[in-house]
Amino acid sequence: MKVALIGAGRIGKVHATSIKADPRSTLVAVADVMAEAAEALAAEHGIAARTVDDILADTGIDAILIASSTNTHADLIEAGIRAGKAIFCEKPIDLSLDRALTVRRAAAGHDRPVMMGFNRRFDPNFAALKAALEAGEIGKGELLSVTSYDPAPPPVSYVKVSGGLFRDMMIHDFDICAFLFGMPRTVMAQGACLVDPAIGAAGDIDTAVVVLGYADGRIATIRNSRRAAYGYDQRIEVLGSGGTLAAENMLENTLVRATEAGVISAKPVHFFLERYMRAYEIEWAAFVAACRDGAPVPTTVQDGVNALALAEAANRSLAEGRPVTITPDLTGG
Amino acid sequence: MKVALIGAGRIGKVHATSIKADPRSTLVAVADVMAEAAEALAAEHGIAARTVDDILADTGIDAILIASSTNTHADLIEAGIRAGKAIFCEKPIDLSLDRALTVRRAAAGHDRPVMMGFNRRFDPNFAALKAALEAGEIGKGELLSVTSYDPAPPPVSYVKVSGGLFRDMMIHDFDICAFLFGMPRTVMAQGACLVDPAIGAAGDIDTAVVVLGYADGRIATIRNSRRAAYGYDQRIEVLGSGGTLAAENMLENTLVRATEAGVISAKPVHFFLERYMRAYEIEWAAFVAACRDGAPVPTTVQDGVNALALAEAANRSLAEGRPVTITPDLTGG
Amino acid sequence: MKVALIGAGRIGKVHATSIKADPRSTLVAVADVMAEAAEALAAEHGIAARTVDDILADTGIDAILIASSTNTHADLIEAGIRAGKAIFCEKPIDLSLDRALTVRRAAAGHDRPVMMGFNRRFDPNFAALKAALEAGEIGKGELLSVTSYDPAPPPVSYVKVSGGLFRDMMIHDFDICAFLFGMPRTVMAQGACLVDPAIGAAGDIDTAVVVLGYADGRIATIRNSRRAAYGYDQRIEVLGSGGTLAAENMLENTLVRATEAGVISAKPVHFFLERYMRAYEIEWAAFVAACRDGAPVPTTVQDGVNALALAEAANRSLAEGRPVTITPDLTGG
Amino acid sequence: MKVALIGAGRIGKVHATSIKADPRSTLVAVADVMAEAAEALAAEHGIAARTVDDILADTGIDAILIASSTNTHADLIEAGIRAGKAIFCEKPIDLSLDRALTVRRAAAGHDRPVMMGFNRRFDPNFAALKAALEAGEIGKGELLSVTSYDPAPPPVSYVKVSGGLFRDMMIHDFDICAFLFGMPRTVMAQGACLVDPAIGAAGDIDTAVVVLGYADGRIATIRNSRRAAYGYDQRIEVLGSGGTLAAENMLENTLVRATEAGVISAKPVHFFLERYMRAYEIEWAAFVAACRDGAPVPTTVQDGVNALALAEAANRSLAEGRPVTITPDLTGG
Repeated sequence: MKVALIGAGRIGKVHATSIKADPRSTLVAVADVMAEAAEALAAEHGIAARTVDDILADTGIDAILIASSTNTHADLIEAGIRAGKAIFCEKPIDLSLDRALTVRRAAAGHDRPVMMGFNRRFDPNFAALKAALEAGEIGKGELLSVTSYDPAPPPVSYVKVSGGLFRDMMIHDFDICAFLFGMPRTVMAQGACLVDPAIGAAGDIDTAVVVLGYADGRIATIRNSRRAAYGYDQRIEVLGSGGTLAAENMLENTLVRATEAGVISAKPVHFFLERYMRAYEIEWAAFVAACRDGAPVPTTVQDGVNALALAEAANRSLAEGRPVTITPDLTGG
Repeated sequence: MKVALIGAGRIGKVHATSIKADPRSTLVAVADVMAEAAEALAAEHGIAARTVDDILADTGIDAILIASSTNTHADLIEAGIRAGKAIFCEKPIDLSLDRALTVRRAAAGHDRPVMMGFNRRFDPNFAALKAALEAGEIGKGELLSVTSYDPAPPPVSYVKVSGGLFRDMMIHDFDICAFLFGMPRTVMAQGACLVDPAIGAAGDIDTAVVVLGYADGRIATIRNSRRAAYGYDQRIEVLGSGGTLAAENMLENTLVRATEAGVISAKPVHFFLERYMRAYEIEWAAFVAACRDGAPVPTTVQDGVNALALAEAANRSLAEGRPVTITPDLTGG
Repeated sequence: MKVALIGAGRIGKVHATSIKADPRSTLVAVADVMAEAAEALAAEHGIAARTVDDILADTGIDAILIASSTNTHADLIEAGIRAGKAIFCEKPIDLSLDRALTVRRAAAGHDRPVMMGFNRRFDPNFAALKAALEAGEIGKGELLSVTSYDPAPPPVSYVKVSGGLFRDMMIHDFDICAFLFGMPRTVMAQGACLVDPAIGAAGDIDTAVVVLGYADGRIATIRNSRRAAYGYDQRIEVLGSGGTLAAENMLENTLVRATEAGVISAKPVHFFLERYMRAYEIEWAAFVAACRDGAPVPTTVQDGVNALALAEAANRSLAEGRPVTITPDLTGG
Repeated sequence: MKVALIGAGRIGKVHATSIKADPRSTLVAVADVMAEAAEALAAEHGIAARTVDDILADTGIDAILIASSTNTHADLIEAGIRAGKAIFCEKPIDLSLDRALTVRRAAAGHDRPVMMGFNRRFDPNFAALKAALEAGEIGKGELLSVTSYDPAPPPVSYVKVSGGLFRDMMIHDFDICAFLFGMPRTVMAQGACLVDPAIGAAGDIDTAVVVLGYADGRIATIRNSRRAAYGYDQRIEVLGSGGTLAAENMLENTLVRATEAGVISAKPVHFFLERYMRAYEIEWAAFVAACRDGAPVPTTVQDGVNALALAEAANRSLAEGRPVTITPDLTGG
């Protein structure tokens, strides 16, 4: 399967490695608005840097992987659809829910896989939790709790174009809740700027708790902070009628020091690339399986719309100080 | 210090043991509306069963410990105040916030200690968390999360007179939040009946998440369930600017089994009497210290009012589907 | 059951508390070669200090608890036997194996319980491990490993009269091995003075590894050190055909701190009195059950002889640099 | 750096992957006595299968990686030396200590790196333990304990040609002890056949404890079993004057299940290829650094001799039932 990569930044490089590592896919072209970035990455893989138009026109290319900036995602998905390509696109579809819904309609008629990159679903720990839940190991799920703290806040310049905490950061956790519990009925958000006053000055928050209410009474809670002194804190816990499932943090190593200071373990792995390295590889293999074996697309455009709708509802809830109901118009349904 | 115990039920027996174990206090009388219960417990301690009136009139008795049913607490506190006794009363003051406020006014003018029994503050694990937080080990606290699941729901007959989940069960967690973070500005409740339909039929919930918003942006989250298959789940976690503090469950023992089935540790201690045995002893010693050494009363009638006000706000929030603000009239302030 | 305590030192006080706490036993007298110590402890319990002779002659006293210095144990056990008392004696019987064997013969004909105080067998964690092993949870045991480190070395003055590391400290671990695996065939000792040179100057070691070989091929390993910077390290691990059982340390509390420095748990409880507080209570209840209910004596004089024989063999092995076989004459045959 | 791989079996394939993954080395040829195996692996890497002679004669090949059967190692190392190649050889040098000493003399005069494959030194957990020990985090090391259990015993056909447990399996643990504590003065072995009677019938043991005594009093203990029902158990623990360092097992994932059955974590990763995957990569990078950057060879032929000498001493100790002293003739010193 011949793949072109659009976007040669940090996350593009991660995907390039996954494409190369998978025996069933080959990276054949790289494009980036920064020509130098495209050329450097292409050279590293012994291939050519090309333009997006050129890639789309090349009928020898089976699939495009969109890892460019968020504001280009929707247009590129639609262009890829027109060009008949299989498409893998990093989250989110767009910062605008309306625009995402347009893309969803376009994708509905496409006969090739269109997959959104929600990497956390593919994390072996979270996937094991999902499998145990579906196997009924704790009976019916009742309370879901997602903890997701970044090690350190991004630069304010990034915050300004990020779409805000709910669309940029918590969108992953909304997707995890949808993955495990499905779509909720209500969203109630509480948030504040406690980490970096500059984030508040830019009109955003850096600390938030969101509660999702489900039609059958189940409840999900998401906790976000842009900063955890000990690293990247990524945990999920589900209480069910038969017990609790918890996916704990991955630690840097297994060394334990017992001294006068206490019993000291290693910290969680610090950065998302280390934490989700395996998830990115497995995610890519799932896309290849959808393209090559006809396996179902595990994270669809609808999943992308759903996560964005929850972020939109959280923004409204925070602004209005009340719970917001998820209505069909929000999810295109 | 001579102490009379009013209430010879399950919790009364726990306190009788603490009174006996403390070298500075002596149990001298027991009263109960069930004469047989009073006599049995009194006999066990080699003392006399007496009436409440008799106890209150006895100037040789320094303190009364009220462990009778909730609907008698307010009257007994007031009677104890009139009789000039030091008073230790199990939570809550009353199911009615108004009635609790009346008691608060009466207690304000009393020159002897009046202490409310919020046992969890005295748990060595939670107290160690509080000490670490106040010592600045994780900088300023930002997100507080309290997990509190009972092993199994109480009988519906009890649920009906309990005052409901927020006043009966989560009141402990409200107090822990006040203990660690102070009084919040807003309360938002989400709840459902997922464990036992009979609880729902009785008009109560058995599963709830409450989010407390603080004036300075801090957020506390409480999770409650009436049932956890693996036992009594009692955890607290605080994220601060410098890291996280977590008080984990106490396990039945330290045995770890590694077999084909996995690596298996013991379950959390199953029942609140085992879990908080040490807390009850330390709590009582704190009351004795307040009576004998003039130490400050660690859990005051105002603390009892505050917890009840948060429960009241949670009930309103659940009924109205919106956040409720804690106004001064709620806490008597 | 009326009990007299002989020995009012540190361990005597622990036992006095256990006697008092047990509803079926009453402390009625205390004796000590230091009259003041006996009087102080007796006063604390509202009873009389008496002489040993007086106690032994008092037919109203059912049992004696011997917690005096090691060199008095053998004589007191024999005197207690002659006086027809039930006897609980702290380990060891004597530093001399020959003397212990004489006591064993005397005890054999006694019609009242004679129990040796090997407290660790009654620790709930170790007892849970034993129960799991006997229930076949890991099949047949193969490799037993006992880790036993004191928090800090005793004063050299104590070391000089202690009988040496094997008879004073590792004797507990020898007993645990006998408890879990029975008596071995061979003993091989390796030891050194690494903690305190003064211990070496006194002719003793402070660090040792002993390997016990069993007739059926099972192997037990004991590690001892007189010093662990993080507290009292007391662990047992058994590999069996179906897995591993491990009794881990009890920690001071369940607080976990995650900061830039790592993920930090509390240290093991520091002192043997805290670590084995429950064990002492349960041990005493077992003695009471032997006296009152005819329950079997769980730790017999033969157990005391066996542990001493292993210590003796370890001393020989260390001196001669070779494994020593446990012959029938060592354990009284 | 152009590398030829000799040996296309299980471990050869692991190394082929490492060679390919390292940006500074290229796999250019594969040889194996089984022509089909060589051809299959070569085809997978798009290169040619060649004979050993052909490889050695090719001056374009910088290095050979010897992953063939143990009985060919010594000859191939010597041939590689004669051909002027850099050499990486899987452990052991040979089953015969005398033969290994001959190889050591040949390697001493070679001007290219000759490195032995002791993969465990490169495991990130064990390397972190080593670094912490050398940084003085627990002061001076005193007691070292290595636990090393295989998930399941190998076929008896393999056992028969393996050289026995000490030379085949515990050799890794001997190397780890030498890595962390240096060479001991004495070796005392205890062993038995408890897992599979067929191993005993083949003249070998499957369960062993070895104690290493150091000249300065330090003691190391190694526990080996050919079978652990829960997977591959690989742990190291060091007690030092300032505390304990412990490298614990790596688990399959971080999922924790709390149910009526207990609190259940995942098992250790089951197989050595998963457990030491990272170690093999880092090990190869260290060889490349020795070849390309002149970095010191981290695991030398002398290290191979030392581990073999300890295995030899353990065999003698087991046979003679006494400790064996490591004399200079054993290590070629």
